[in-house]
Amino acid sequence: MIMETAYITVSPGRADEFEEVLRGALDIVREAEGFIDVHVHRGIERPDVVMLAIAWESLEAHTVGFRESSRFTAWRTAISPFFAAPPEVEHWILR
Amino acid sequence: MIMETAYITVSPGRADEFEEVLRGALDIVREAEGFIDVHVHRGIERPDVVMLAIAWESLEAHTVGFRESSRFTAWRTAISPFFAAPPEVEHWILR
Repeated sequence: MIMETAYITVSPGRADEFEEVLRGALDIVREAEGFIDVHVHRGIERPDVVMLAIAWESLEAHTVGFRESSRFTAWRTAISPFFAAPPEVEHWILR
Repeated sequence: MIMETAYITVSPGRADEFEEVLRGALDIVREAEGFIDVHVHRGIERPDVVMLAIAWESLEAHTVGFRESSRFTAWRTAISPFFAAPPEVEHWILR
């Protein structure tokens, strides 16, 4: 299992609306092969930042299986109108 | 409940040794009032970065209760020799 962190900076004042859209759009991710679970976080110091922590069965489940699928296009189409900047994505090994 | 994220960039090549020390030092945090749980992550893209995700009962349990206690001094004394830079700490509301 690996964890993806995605920091999404939302256009000023649109984070609440983004969270609503996100709730629905995450179903696209939940149905992906190798998806385990997701937690959504809202910044206290940075209220315009939403952080997703997504557990995947492997790095490739995210970077290849999901990102190279049509699901990724649908996911990004739903959420990208809210981006103030490109999301910052990294991967982690859980100790 | 809130979540603290702490990104710790370790001196080059010392991350494995740091993880060993961290395992013991985290007991200092675990015994703090308001502590819920901790997960330790190691970067895939940045192998010299260790990310701690610590759940606290409240923001103040971390920023006041823990940080203004002698536990914080003991914790930082144990882990700071490994820092290549000051840790980057933020807090999050779990949705």
